[in-house]
Amino acid sequence: MKIIAVTGARSEFDLLSTLYDKMYEDDFFDFSIVVTGAHLSDTFGKTVKNIETKGYRIADRIYNLVDTSEKIGRVISLGNQISSFAQTFDREQPDLIIVAGDREEAISVSMTAAYMDIPVAHFFGGDIAKDGNIDNSTRYAASKYSHLHFVTLEQHKETLMKLGEEEDRIYVVGNPAIDNIVSTPTMSRKILSKNIGFDIENEDYLVLIKHPIITETKDQRRQMEVILDSIIESNIKCLINYPNSDAGNREIIDVIDEYTAKSESLFVFKNLDRLNYVNLLRNATSLIGNSSSGLLEAPSLGLPAINIGSRQRGRIHGNNVLFIDHEKAEIKDAINKVRSDKKFLELVKNSDSPYGNGKTTEKVVKIFKEVKLDDNLIYKNITY
Amino acid sequence: MKIIAVTGARSEFDLLSTLYDKMYEDDFFDFSIVVTGAHLSDTFGKTVKNIETKGYRIADRIYNLVDTSEKIGRVISLGNQISSFAQTFDREQPDLIIVAGDREEAISVSMTAAYMDIPVAHFFGGDIAKDGNIDNSTRYAASKYSHLHFVTLEQHKETLMKLGEEEDRIYVVGNPAIDNIVSTPTMSRKILSKNIGFDIENEDYLVLIKHPIITETKDQRRQMEVILDSIIESNIKCLINYPNSDAGNREIIDVIDEYTAKSESLFVFKNLDRLNYVNLLRNATSLIGNSSSGLLEAPSLGLPAINIGSRQRGRIHGNNVLFIDHEKAEIKDAINKVRSDKKFLELVKNSDSPYGNGKTTEKVVKIFKEVKLDDNLIYKNITY
Amino acid sequence: MKIIAVTGARSEFDLLSTLYDKMYEDDFFDFSIVVTGAHLSDTFGKTVKNIETKGYRIADRIYNLVDTSEKIGRVISLGNQISSFAQTFDREQPDLIIVAGDREEAISVSMTAAYMDIPVAHFFGGDIAKDGNIDNSTRYAASKYSHLHFVTLEQHKETLMKLGEEEDRIYVVGNPAIDNIVSTPTMSRKILSKNIGFDIENEDYLVLIKHPIITETKDQRRQMEVILDSIIESNIKCLINYPNSDAGNREIIDVIDEYTAKSESLFVFKNLDRLNYVNLLRNATSLIGNSSSGLLEAPSLGLPAINIGSRQRGRIHGNNVLFIDHEKAEIKDAINKVRSDKKFLELVKNSDSPYGNGKTTEKVVKIFKEVKLDDNLIYKNITY
Amino acid sequence: MKIIAVTGARSEFDLLSTLYDKMYEDDFFDFSIVVTGAHLSDTFGKTVKNIETKGYRIADRIYNLVDTSEKIGRVISLGNQISSFAQTFDREQPDLIIVAGDREEAISVSMTAAYMDIPVAHFFGGDIAKDGNIDNSTRYAASKYSHLHFVTLEQHKETLMKLGEEEDRIYVVGNPAIDNIVSTPTMSRKILSKNIGFDIENEDYLVLIKHPIITETKDQRRQMEVILDSIIESNIKCLINYPNSDAGNREIIDVIDEYTAKSESLFVFKNLDRLNYVNLLRNATSLIGNSSSGLLEAPSLGLPAINIGSRQRGRIHGNNVLFIDHEKAEIKDAINKVRSDKKFLELVKNSDSPYGNGKTTEKVVKIFKEVKLDDNLIYKNITY
Repeated sequence: MKIIAVTGARSEFDLLSTLYDKMYEDDFFDFSIVVTGAHLSDTFGKTVKNIETKGYRIADRIYNLVDTSEKIGRVISLGNQISSFAQTFDREQPDLIIVAGDREEAISVSMTAAYMDIPVAHFFGGDIAKDGNIDNSTRYAASKYSHLHFVTLEQHKETLMKLGEEEDRIYVVGNPAIDNIVSTPTMSRKILSKNIGFDIENEDYLVLIKHPIITETKDQRRQMEVILDSIIESNIKCLINYPNSDAGNREIIDVIDEYTAKSESLFVFKNLDRLNYVNLLRNATSLIGNSSSGLLEAPSLGLPAINIGSRQRGRIHGNNVLFIDHEKAEIKDAINKVRSDKKFLELVKNSDSPYGNGKTTEKVVKIFKEVKLDDNLIYKNITY
Repeated sequence: MKIIAVTGARSEFDLLSTLYDKMYEDDFFDFSIVVTGAHLSDTFGKTVKNIETKGYRIADRIYNLVDTSEKIGRVISLGNQISSFAQTFDREQPDLIIVAGDREEAISVSMTAAYMDIPVAHFFGGDIAKDGNIDNSTRYAASKYSHLHFVTLEQHKETLMKLGEEEDRIYVVGNPAIDNIVSTPTMSRKILSKNIGFDIENEDYLVLIKHPIITETKDQRRQMEVILDSIIESNIKCLINYPNSDAGNREIIDVIDEYTAKSESLFVFKNLDRLNYVNLLRNATSLIGNSSSGLLEAPSLGLPAINIGSRQRGRIHGNNVLFIDHEKAEIKDAINKVRSDKKFLELVKNSDSPYGNGKTTEKVVKIFKEVKLDDNLIYKNITY
Repeated sequence: MKIIAVTGARSEFDLLSTLYDKMYEDDFFDFSIVVTGAHLSDTFGKTVKNIETKGYRIADRIYNLVDTSEKIGRVISLGNQISSFAQTFDREQPDLIIVAGDREEAISVSMTAAYMDIPVAHFFGGDIAKDGNIDNSTRYAASKYSHLHFVTLEQHKETLMKLGEEEDRIYVVGNPAIDNIVSTPTMSRKILSKNIGFDIENEDYLVLIKHPIITETKDQRRQMEVILDSIIESNIKCLINYPNSDAGNREIIDVIDEYTAKSESLFVFKNLDRLNYVNLLRNATSLIGNSSSGLLEAPSLGLPAINIGSRQRGRIHGNNVLFIDHEKAEIKDAINKVRSDKKFLELVKNSDSPYGNGKTTEKVVKIFKEVKLDDNLIYKNITY
Repeated sequence: MKIIAVTGARSEFDLLSTLYDKMYEDDFFDFSIVVTGAHLSDTFGKTVKNIETKGYRIADRIYNLVDTSEKIGRVISLGNQISSFAQTFDREQPDLIIVAGDREEAISVSMTAAYMDIPVAHFFGGDIAKDGNIDNSTRYAASKYSHLHFVTLEQHKETLMKLGEEEDRIYVVGNPAIDNIVSTPTMSRKILSKNIGFDIENEDYLVLIKHPIITETKDQRRQMEVILDSIIESNIKCLINYPNSDAGNREIIDVIDEYTAKSESLFVFKNLDRLNYVNLLRNATSLIGNSSSGLLEAPSLGLPAINIGSRQRGRIHGNNVLFIDHEKAEIKDAINKVRSDKKFLELVKNSDSPYGNGKTTEKVVKIFKEVKLDDNLIYKNITY
């Protein structure tokens, strides 16, 4: 079974890499990958390097990301990919194509494949990001072009069925990232400090990831300043990751650069590998910012997450998440809570993750092996 | 109010041209048009000429159609448009963009505009074409990227609401093509015969339009031969229009060319203007083939339509349509019925069209004038 | 040695296919081909089929040709190719890329490869087509981006040296098409008549190929009509090939279709295979029109060529070519001469071809085997 | 006379902006500009802002630059532009298009226009950059597609004539940048210090601009370190500008960031406006690095230039340039010389610039007004 996965960003690749590893090792599959988007961008750290070390056959590298933070950039970059994907799919003639999420690749890949009558398996459909706007539109449009849906939650399945997708195309499998996390080897704080070049051996620290909110691009500088001021005033070390490539990310990066230049308790880590990253989370006091990691991954590590602002609001979450606004008092209170509120910390430790139990990869592989690759897979009925 | 309409094919342009004319004449609107796709193709008759005579400002001509009938062609052509549309929209900064239907432009335009936070009004959403497959996917994906929906039937509105579209973005306005038809001046058979260069002054004739069925590309030759054989054996003149640009159209064109070369009762008309075309329908015995014209336009002219094969099946239709298969006996029977079954012909003449009463343009213009162009228009909520 | 040849049109592929066959058979080379342009176009007969039968690995099929005869079409088609070629070359990492001639692929391929520091071997540089204008510009621009030059004539080498190209990058090898022709098996007129479906067993016939003259697009209809009228009045059968894809070709095609519909002595052959084509030439009374075939290939077959109009004027040619204008009297005189002027026919038969002796392939293969693939090949000096 | 200039980078825009200003003010011309490439890139400082303040009509903004420093990036970016330029030129139908230099836009613009039969005026043809390789290829290829050539030096004219360009298409006009410099208002060191935020009121300083050498990408870090170490050891302040976007620029930027973080005598200025920049040069002790500014602009300001490494070697230059290697001893000697060698400084002050006298704009405008816009301009003859 010839499968091509298309990956456009580290965040989405990391979620599925355990699945990709499994398929790569399994002789049933002829697995290869197409690398594009942020993976090949200098600005986003050329994360293609992480993929190259995996050993997968790279069916094509597609350089499409336009160097601009203007809104027009995303859709031009998207358009640039389409003839490239068509070229690749036409040459490779895969039995199935995998794509994930709600970013540009989700729609460009599913659309290209659907027009060419090649089946597409889409991951993470049926979700709704509050204030996601264009990303919600893209996620649903991608579902309309896809032939198999692998979703995280039962609720996502229901949403896809409302969209007119046939029930037998939809599989609730949990989040594959949990498999990844659960199986990541443990590392000591000592070695971790050495690896990242910043001392966290005996000290509390936060991990901060703030992505831009594209409907609030003009407020990104202020939002980031409030967060960093609150952290500095709370006297806690903080490790910061760069934001994703959405419009507004330059403002956030600028603030990070300014603050880390003057404060010794702040530290930027760029493109950390997964092993170090998961262990950073394991040992952290809390995640902070607005990364989906706080809802999806943190609960299975028993890690609190302080989610600031509108991003992620309204999504299903465990007991570990505190939702607050970009207000200094609220942020400092929350930091205090994750450091010292024993009852809260106990609750976080003992709660189940709503996003799955670490068996997602196994389930998906089984479904791929059983799926019938025939015209019925391609020709979709609309259920109303 | 600065409005740009994007048109990629004659069929869709003809449906909306009455609306475009109205906006062009009305000083409230700064109206212009972007011409692309089949309009600029030699193979499809360079129908941009018809648009140029309208006098609209042509904001850009976008040459994107790849010269192939392979499946890969449609999506490469689609991809070619995106950076071009982005360039145009970025320069023009329109208040609203209009696009229609379920072809490539529907998705490429709505997606481009949505990523650039420019409102899109989409026409003909919520419809379901049986066996439409990729066109259905595209129509729904386009709806997910659009901010205003102008639909033909109440049933289409219900479908869009199931898709999670907010009710106050959806307007049921009927089919604008009916406005067009109702207001087209009448022409005598004599003049008509002269104009088209084929004598139909005193004789019955059919109008045949058969588009390819992309899920049955291999059967197009046979299907077309059966139809033409049946017509010849029925001893009735027939005027034939070329098919659209879907995969399989070459086979149909080849058959048309072969048959018209040897039979004097068959006649091909290419790119006939609207005035002559509507009057051809007005005077015809019946439409035959699988054009949507039989369902949408024919009833308001009291014209029977013989719809052969799977295309158009399952769509809402009036009493004028006979659905049959590609079988010679069925086709000849149907031709006989439209020529001589008085009861049937009476019924056709006296039935209302389910697709509207000729007031669509008026309604749409009123809505455009009242719509609020603010952030609420751009930021869509999902209703579940 | 990993070699990729890029081919965009049948004319250029046919010239080099003997070389490609040789490399494909020789284990020294890892040979593959990229197919693009007119080869994948429906309008130009999908000649990719001829390439597929060769068995070469097809590294990519690149659909780029925009469906228009407007001037803008050629350069958009050219632009469409570049990111596709870059994708292919980046994946394949060839040691050398081959491209030929003066059409769009010549510049798009050589430019893409040169920017990626991959060596390019360009065939047929240094030539000058009178009135070629854009094609001359392209041929020379392609030479500036190429690292090895394989030219037909000593005079072409001199031209490239004037352009600042280093002498040791330039090889005079003759025209590879002559190898092809000389080695084509012989076929009887009887079988030939059967194969093409037109009786030439016992009769004189001309082979007519008229390509558009892009500086005289408005005159193409008249030119073609004069030629066909003259042929009909000369009472000689004529086999006609369709023109290439330059602007103006529609007009020529239209005239061909009109004349062949009414005259039984005219016959169109489309996309004839090489074997039949060469034998058609072998048995013809004369080539007529403005194809380069008359100068390049005809002399090695002892075949007269009547070259009408400005195309090909001023190029090196043998004694077999008659240069005349689009005047009926001149054309009829020339037809008379090639049918009955014994002295002239004797001269044609006994003259050498200025374009080579059939050993080109052998020479090129030897040079490829000896060329040093190092940085010196990439870094060009300008010789003034 | 409708003229469109295309600009892709600040360096080239600054050279021609005096000409553009003149045409914009002159009612004879309908002047507009197309902005693309590095101007629209975040990485290169969105210099489109400087163009917007000019007030020119911006006919289109074309976002094409792919976010990568891999070699493949330049040619993909180039390819992305072509259909966009075609769209613009087709809509605008200019009488003449202006493009300059040897970067991607030079070839993409001239090629697009030439295929569309629109005349192109190319500036700075005929030059040869030692080790320029791909840039030399591009400059000459652009000349082959251009119809008018405006060159700086008599020697460049001779080169173009060797390339087969017709003499009456070539105009030696000097370098327009000299016009710009000569006419820039004078500014005091005090105000200058305030404007740039770095105190140079009473102190010697160098201006350092080092661009990457694309044939030595691996050596960029070492080269930049040697230069900065030498400057620090020479105890002289230094103002540094970021390099251009060639491959290797990341390494240089990294070194700049590291050194300026630790040394107070180094200062980075990004995207300084022309007024401040020219006055920085006027008051500097010397230019240092490898910018063409040292050869082209510095002599008309009586400014010494220390040119380090292979870039610019072999180009015509005045007495103000010292050519040295990336050796600390040589660099320190040169810095010493430009600070204290009175005889050398006297010579620099009193020498003429080989690049013109500040009358270029006037000459070019006159030629544009006199040029005949007819078919002879489009149809080029090759002079051999």
